[in-house]
Amino acid sequence: MKITVIGAGNVGATATQRIVEKQLAREVVLVDVVDGVPQGKALDMYESAPVELFDTRVVGTTGYEETAGSDIILITAGRPRKPGMSRDDLLAMNTEIVKTVTEEAVSKSPNAIIIVVSNPLDVMTYVAYVRSGFPKERVIGMAGVLDTARFRTFIAMELNVSVQDVNAFVLGGHGDSMVPVVKYTTVAGIPISELLPQDRIAALVDRARKGGIEIVNYLKTGSAYYAPSASAVEMIDAIVNDRKRIMPCSAYVTGQYGLNDVFVGVPVKLGRGGVEQVLEINLDEADRNALQASANEVKESCEKVNSMMQ
Amino acid sequence: MKITVIGAGNVGATATQRIVEKQLAREVVLVDVVDGVPQGKALDMYESAPVELFDTRVVGTTGYEETAGSDIILITAGRPRKPGMSRDDLLAMNTEIVKTVTEEAVSKSPNAIIIVVSNPLDVMTYVAYVRSGFPKERVIGMAGVLDTARFRTFIAMELNVSVQDVNAFVLGGHGDSMVPVVKYTTVAGIPISELLPQDRIAALVDRARKGGIEIVNYLKTGSAYYAPSASAVEMIDAIVNDRKRIMPCSAYVTGQYGLNDVFVGVPVKLGRGGVEQVLEINLDEADRNALQASANEVKESCEKVNSMMQ
Amino acid sequence: MKITVIGAGNVGATATQRIVEKQLAREVVLVDVVDGVPQGKALDMYESAPVELFDTRVVGTTGYEETAGSDIILITAGRPRKPGMSRDDLLAMNTEIVKTVTEEAVSKSPNAIIIVVSNPLDVMTYVAYVRSGFPKERVIGMAGVLDTARFRTFIAMELNVSVQDVNAFVLGGHGDSMVPVVKYTTVAGIPISELLPQDRIAALVDRARKGGIEIVNYLKTGSAYYAPSASAVEMIDAIVNDRKRIMPCSAYVTGQYGLNDVFVGVPVKLGRGGVEQVLEINLDEADRNALQASANEVKESCEKVNSMMQ
Amino acid sequence: MKITVIGAGNVGATATQRIVEKQLAREVVLVDVVDGVPQGKALDMYESAPVELFDTRVVGTTGYEETAGSDIILITAGRPRKPGMSRDDLLAMNTEIVKTVTEEAVSKSPNAIIIVVSNPLDVMTYVAYVRSGFPKERVIGMAGVLDTARFRTFIAMELNVSVQDVNAFVLGGHGDSMVPVVKYTTVAGIPISELLPQDRIAALVDRARKGGIEIVNYLKTGSAYYAPSASAVEMIDAIVNDRKRIMPCSAYVTGQYGLNDVFVGVPVKLGRGGVEQVLEINLDEADRNALQASANEVKESCEKVNSMMQ
Repeated sequence: MKITVIGAGNVGATATQRIVEKQLAREVVLVDVVDGVPQGKALDMYESAPVELFDTRVVGTTGYEETAGSDIILITAGRPRKPGMSRDDLLAMNTEIVKTVTEEAVSKSPNAIIIVVSNPLDVMTYVAYVRSGFPKERVIGMAGVLDTARFRTFIAMELNVSVQDVNAFVLGGHGDSMVPVVKYTTVAGIPISELLPQDRIAALVDRARKGGIEIVNYLKTGSAYYAPSASAVEMIDAIVNDRKRIMPCSAYVTGQYGLNDVFVGVPVKLGRGGVEQVLEINLDEADRNALQASANEVKESCEKVNSMMQ
Repeated sequence: MKITVIGAGNVGATATQRIVEKQLAREVVLVDVVDGVPQGKALDMYESAPVELFDTRVVGTTGYEETAGSDIILITAGRPRKPGMSRDDLLAMNTEIVKTVTEEAVSKSPNAIIIVVSNPLDVMTYVAYVRSGFPKERVIGMAGVLDTARFRTFIAMELNVSVQDVNAFVLGGHGDSMVPVVKYTTVAGIPISELLPQDRIAALVDRARKGGIEIVNYLKTGSAYYAPSASAVEMIDAIVNDRKRIMPCSAYVTGQYGLNDVFVGVPVKLGRGGVEQVLEINLDEADRNALQASANEVKESCEKVNSMMQ
Repeated sequence: MKITVIGAGNVGATATQRIVEKQLAREVVLVDVVDGVPQGKALDMYESAPVELFDTRVVGTTGYEETAGSDIILITAGRPRKPGMSRDDLLAMNTEIVKTVTEEAVSKSPNAIIIVVSNPLDVMTYVAYVRSGFPKERVIGMAGVLDTARFRTFIAMELNVSVQDVNAFVLGGHGDSMVPVVKYTTVAGIPISELLPQDRIAALVDRARKGGIEIVNYLKTGSAYYAPSASAVEMIDAIVNDRKRIMPCSAYVTGQYGLNDVFVGVPVKLGRGGVEQVLEINLDEADRNALQASANEVKESCEKVNSMMQ
Repeated sequence: MKITVIGAGNVGATATQRIVEKQLAREVVLVDVVDGVPQGKALDMYESAPVELFDTRVVGTTGYEETAGSDIILITAGRPRKPGMSRDDLLAMNTEIVKTVTEEAVSKSPNAIIIVVSNPLDVMTYVAYVRSGFPKERVIGMAGVLDTARFRTFIAMELNVSVQDVNAFVLGGHGDSMVPVVKYTTVAGIPISELLPQDRIAALVDRARKGGIEIVNYLKTGSAYYAPSASAVEMIDAIVNDRKRIMPCSAYVTGQYGLNDVFVGVPVKLGRGGVEQVLEINLDEADRNALQASANEVKESCEKVNSMMQ
């Protein structure tokens, strides 16, 4: 197993650290345009190997030669939105970045599975899908795993129970347009509606939706990376170990939930083949409408992106 | 942290192996009446330490001196039912064994938490409770974790999904009188009734109920120990790491679910204090009746046991 | 990765448990001639998956169909020596067993790497080598890892230091004819001769040599399996993760140390290719002579075995 | 177990991540003077708990109230040397920082063990020792574990062997004044002098000495944190699990190696009591002189520091 991580910022570097320490691959290549950073972080990590007892090789580089033959490509490259920058400016900039790195990476690893973490998530996953020319099973966006991780954490804190026993279910886009399905959110199987009053649940949902901003507000000059990298690596682990995990991911839908030809957060079965199945479950009308709205939003952005990529 | 495991048969020895390899304690003492067996197994395990990289001390002994000051006592001692032996003969024999080891162990470790694995489970937990004189929070029986593990495995096999994403919920006694709560049994939060037809669910429930016998029928001269030991050690882990896990355990109920003064399988919160809470959830009338019947069965046996212990 | 374990006794079953819990393979097949035992143990293990959180498939069987396409074959089959049985009787019996299982297994998995645990170790490794027709790189015997694990444990106990910091070096045959190289036996790099008097070292060497017997004397009706299975699985881990570990293994020498065409304990580099290198190090004359004597002993038994296999 | 980490920069935050993911404590408190950073990083980490499956509580704060009753205090606070800044300016600045945080921390946790990572290492450890008023067993500096980790990595890369099989031994101060003891540096027990020519060994020693600078040269605006945090947490693990590890640490010597009343890198036994023993080993005259020189250098800086702290 060989894995390429594109982007040596905090998310990409911490994802690399997790992959090598869990020994999910024989070799990991960390790529970044800023010379020195991927090499330095990779070497620093490798120097922890005698202590953390892993033998995964980790290499940093600014080129793509070393990435050849990768089984998985994790794309974390992209810029954050800066003051004075419009949403469309950001969209244009990150579209250009994700388009470029996708083309470079797939030219060396034509059989890989791509996992996208760059924002805006569902749209950037679409960019990687279009520019890679890969079948839809092999391009996946990471959003729901992170959103549910945050939601689960807040529920566990509220009830003073182990995070391990909380299961949450979300659909739709990342962040604001996230659609939490409360009736499938449980503690040891018990729906949280039996354990928490409606207003507390609403408050926790709201906090989960704004989970990314909460961290930005704390850090001021940076954004979250521990939970995002953990979430992406959990998806990689599901693929590497062919686990058949059921996880909320941004996947390309072809009719499921009445949605077509768009990347949106849905429960999928993740295994060695990538997205092996999109699960369709019964939704209330409200949840179904929210999911539709979320998908429409993504579609609009994708149209903009299409014209940008011409 | 110091842990005593009583009974060096397959369940006790494998539980000891798991505890030392996970380093849940600084010292583990394995006790058995058969001289040589606890010492030999403990030494064999300790000789794997340089390979498995644990530094937990493990000691085998036939006495209780070395167990002094334990934080947790795991009782696995007891005999299996042999051909020609009545249920009451077995009850009498194991009552005598559990009574004796409990008294010996608590005399050296008066502040420990006791976890019972010996069968018949709920009754033997009662014996340990009575003879230890411990408060109800510090005596717990292991049954539901194993029953749900089996049920989860069968569901995962049926749906070809990761065992990690299956959550099951059972109440009541161990084995035959187990009460599976199907509506709280989920895959990634989705109730299995949305994923499987009713008759398949019934078949899997039935297989879980008879899970112990299925293994005995295969092994012929022995019974299950991998899943039972894993289940007991998961409870120990919840206590040692103060996780506040919500797990189905045999706990002493004082009014919950309309039941009183009996050990029966209910969802509890497990932490450093032992049973920190018994969770009460909404049950259908059918489930409530089944739980009541299960509790009545245990009570009857406990009355027999009371006369035996006079 | 697919791994076959032959022999569902304590060593084979515990090795299987370790492989699945460490997720070293996607599938493990446990084979035994006694119907029910491999199936029962495999199912019991699989039922611990939801607790131990592994998704490795584990299957028990009495046939070899299910083993097809394995990457690694671990042979643990064989009988212990019983009272009244001569060494040659034992040799004949286990030769027949190892010969049979090797032929069956390699017919389904012609590209596998074979690791032998059956006793007498070096001779049984030779049997597997001859009957598989595999190149010497792909047939390895497990002995030195276990012998050093025991030696390291005794040193750690004597000095009250972590087992992790003790490194030991042995050559030659398994057990009695083991050749410990004391000058390469260290604690955190410090030769033990600086830390322990000569007579204590001699006592620990002697105990390590008789380590197997010590456990048999305790258990009476069984022999060691925790440390042997851990040692075998460490070798499997080195191969699966292509670690390039330097480990003392029984390997086929072709001139190294002046020895030819015999399996004997030497330091090898273990990686995805099996035995990737036999390391030659400087030996004192005494150690060299002891190694020669050890190899001669193995050769004699191999000649007997050759006539048995005609 | 409760652990406080002071300094939420990359070293402190990554150390915190490692502690919570390994569950070495029930609670970890991350302290920093920059409001928002410790809270944001702690929350981000906590939101990875449902994925990484830990239940360790992690809290970020700018004050010391929450640190009360810690068992271990890890001090990572301090500034890097900037262009135009003299060594003495840096010394004065970090002395002030370490002095302040030590006094604050020990006022809340009078029974803790202090581990110092701040640079210049041996001198800052001295500052923490003096200002805490703690016995010498409970104040330790992290340097040798990192220096050996780097040295081991370079040897493993050179020989293409697993990092797990390389053991290295260093004494003396951190970085430039590090004294590698080549004769106790081994691969699977074999001295590297048997495996590598003298000039290659010298080159690897030199690279290890300058290991910190190599990373700075790559990163330009930052310094190493993966290997330093791993090294510090390995020491914490040795203490928490009472492992009796033999590790090269900066410890207060009282006559060993002819050195007195100074913190310098020596092999120590680390357990629940902190530095439980300073091991004295035979040194060549050259190594002994180098160690003496290294200690003298530290002593000079400590004298400067003494006047600064008046």
